[in-house]
Formats: sequence, structure tokens, C-alpha cells
Amino acid sequence: MSMANTFTAGMLAIGDELLSGRTKDKNIGRLAEMLVLAGIDLKEVRIVSDEQDAIVEALNALRARYTYVFTSGGIGPTHDDITADAVSAAFGVACIHDPDAMTLLAEMYARRGMEFSEARKRMARMPEGSRHIANPVSTAPGFIIGNVHVMAGVPSVFEAMLDNVIPTLEGGAKLLSVTVPCPFGEGDIGTPLAAVQKNHPATSIGSYPQFDGVKFSTELVIRGREMIAIDAAKADVEDMITSIAMDKEQKAQEIGGQVA
Amino acid sequence: MSMANTFTAGMLAIGDELLSGRTKDKNIGRLAEMLVLAGIDLKEVRIVSDEQDAIVEALNALRARYTYVFTSGGIGPTHDDITADAVSAAFGVACIHDPDAMTLLAEMYARRGMEFSEARKRMARMPEGSRHIANPVSTAPGFIIGNVHVMAGVPSVFEAMLDNVIPTLEGGAKLLSVTVPCPFGEGDIGTPLAAVQKNHPATSIGSYPQFDGVKFSTELVIRGREMIAIDAAKADVEDMITSIAMDKEQKAQEIGGQVA
Repeated sequence: MSMANTFTAGMLAIGDELLSGRTKDKNIGRLAEMLVLAGIDLKEVRIVSDEQDAIVEALNALRARYTYVFTSGGIGPTHDDITADAVSAAFGVACIHDPDAMTLLAEMYARRGMEFSEARKRMARMPEGSRHIANPVSTAPGFIIGNVHVMAGVPSVFEAMLDNVIPTLEGGAKLLSVTVPCPFGEGDIGTPLAAVQKNHPATSIGSYPQFDGVKFSTELVIRGREMIAIDAAKADVEDMITSIAMDKEQKAQEIGGQVA
Repeated sequence: MSMANTFTAGMLAIGDELLSGRTKDKNIGRLAEMLVLAGIDLKEVRIVSDEQDAIVEALNALRARYTYVFTSGGIGPTHDDITADAVSAAFGVACIHDPDAMTLLAEMYARRGMEFSEARKRMARMPEGSRHIANPVSTAPGFIIGNVHVMAGVPSVFEAMLDNVIPTLEGGAKLLSVTVPCPFGEGDIGTPLAAVQKNHPATSIGSYPQFDGVKFSTELVIRGREMIAIDAAKADVEDMITSIAMDKEQKAQEIGGQVA
């Protein structure tokens, strides 16, 4: 889209299980929806395995490029949960057992009468100087360092953490959108729609094909920061649809005339 | 995972709609599953918007790094379908209306009595010198150039194209796996499991937490190229589970003894 927006985001989803097909990611779509509402453009997502070099490289690329970075996964208690180490390495700071997180977890396990094992203590590890992201579901906090927001991979926990993060973000203008139903398929509208898009650079026009089993139609979604720009594009889109309909009717009559 | 594998893959999913949350991607999980079966390690996925610079940069990074690259999306008839242009730019070749694809599409639209419009002709565009990926669903072919396989974003078409591509790929040994059910949560097994993993570098041991509403358990999945390595790791994992169970029983008896 051609609209400028100061607020951009990248996401890094971490985990072998996402790349083996064992787990189908749900967090990308959730983050995408929430960022649209917050007026922040999600520009890029990367999924990498539980390998420190891969995480560090992707994280450094994303955090240099976008206003905000959000990660999911790899902050549990097992040996393959290495996100805290990798984020610390990316920022060049020590990975410590955060004292406040240790207290939170120790109290929680004491309440439940469970051992606060070495493995469980791993969940208190984060880069020195991080701030917490509260975890109302299972206590172990996410963390924020620089522009990077580190959250859990379990969707219910990711979602709860994200709900705590979103209100703290400085967002752009909210992205507005209008949907225009169109009775024609993409093959009919492609060329004229490109012309409409070109005349309305302050909007982003997407077409979403639909097939009811008999014929194709499309939903045209016009997005923008200002309703006046969207309305102007919408008027031209509606004129385009009318014009295509008239063309088709005329052709049908011509064919009818020849047959008659 | 520490296992060497000559055959690796990266995926590039293209489309604003994936980053706005409007469409939830289904192709990444599908590709992941198929590549496991083919013995090819999917190492990285990137999702980018319909912007040529973003597509070119991600594609060039992935194709330099992995044996195979697979893309989804952006090969339809509308103005925002720019994958053919971007792939051509990445390879530094012309983007042409491929003559064979033009013939295929012209015949199909003639059969259906539909106009072969300029927009529809866009679907015949691909980098000069590409080979086709047959599309049994809706005719318009995907294409292969270098190590890059360009496929549609619509899941049914992506899947059909992928079915045609997979048998043509040279794969590694098939990845084998064994699942060991474990009655303990990740907090109990984290530390000893890390030790088992360290002793079995020819395997990759993943733990998948499960919660039945009362207590946590895990499924431990041991993956590897050779069953002898997996079996050795499995024996140690089973010993680990027995040892944790005995520890817990002993502690329970000690507490019982103190109370008595």
C-alpha cells in the first residue's frame, strides 16, 4: 500500500514445531488483527526454528527495520526454550534469572505445593534490564527489551499477554475500511480496478475472490487512514462495476441480435 | 536440531491479506507436513506484503540460503498480483507472457465461452525461462525458476500444485519419529530431558505439553534419520521417566513418614 505510516511491526514466531507442521500457528493471525485495530502496519513475519543463530539473525533484522517487534514461543521450561538466551545475545546483554519473576513463580509454585525446579526457574530468565509482560494465565511473564516484545507460544497465553501489550503501544491513525460487493470475478475487474487503485494512492484496494459453486464474484475492500479518501475510491469502484455490467449487457444483446 | 541434512527449504508467503489478519494462512502448515514426509527440513518461513522490494529481498535471502524455496500467493489476475514481476526482478530476467501458458488459458476460456481479458492474461506471466507447475484446479500454472517454486495462494490450488512438485524434489532420508507419552509436566522433565538430548545429538527431542484440566503431562517426540539413534534416545527417555516416578514416590513416602 502506498500510504505512509510511522508505526510498523514485524513478528518472529519461534519453534521447530511450527516448521514441522506439528503445530499450526494461531498467533500470527491474532497479532495481525490486533495491530490493524491499533493502527500499526504489520509488515513482515518470520518463522524460525529453535536455533540461537537463526533467532538472533531474524530478530536483529526485524528490530532494526520496524517500530515494534513481537515474538512468540520458546519461553517455557525445557531445554529447547532458548528465546530468552537468544534475545539476550541479540541485544548483547546478560540473560539472568529476573528477581521479580523468580518471586512471582516461587510464590505461585508454593501456593500450589509444587517444586520450584531448576527447569521451572528457566521461565524467570530474561535479558538484564527487561520489563515484564504480565501473564494472567500461567504466571511466568513475557518481557520487553528495546522495541522487542517477547511472548509465549501457547495461543491462550500469547493472547492474554498481547492484550496487556497493545494498550501500551503508540499507534498510528486507525486503519478504516469499506467493503464493496462486486458480482464479477477478478478476471473481469483486474484491469479497470488497477486504474482505480492508481487514481487513489491514499487507499489500498484489495480484491477477495469468492466462488459459490456456479460463478465467481469478489469482495472489494478499500482501506485507508481517512474516510474522505476511501469514499472517493469507493465512488470510482462503484462506477467501475456499473460500467462492467453495462458492457456485459451490451455484448449479450449484440450476440442475441446476431442470433435473432 | 543437530542433525545434518543436505536438503533444506524456505517458504515465502506473499500477501497483504495475511498481514492484516483477513486471511489465515493454511499453506505454511501444509508445506511443512509435506516436506517432513519428503525428508526436507523446512528451516524458515517469511510472510511479506504485496510490495516488490519486500518480495525481492526476502526471495533473494531465502534462495541463497536453502536448497529449495516455495512461494504462495500473488499470481492471480489483479493489479496487486505482482509475484511474477518480483520473481523476475529477483532473478534479473524479463517477465513475459509465457506462450504455453497463454495457449492453455486461451483454450480454457474459449471452452467456457469467457473473454480472455488482459487481466486474465496476467496469469500467463512468468520469468523468461521458467518451467510450469501444472494446476489441475484452475489451469493457470505456477512456475519454477532456479530453486524457486512459485505457487498460488488459494489453498486448494496451492495443495494441488504442491502435489505435482513434491515428487520432483530430491529429498534427504525420510525423517523418522517415535512418540513417548510422559505422565509429568515440562517443569518436572526439563532438566533431565536436556541431559538426554545432549547425549543423543543424532536425534531431536521435542516436548509437547498437554493439560487435561487437572494435571499436566507431555508427549515426547524423538525425531531422527536413523531408527537405531531414535531407539537409543527412547531407552534413555524411558529410564528418565521411571527415575522421576521413583523420586516422586520416595518423596511422597518421606512426607508420609514425617507426618506419621
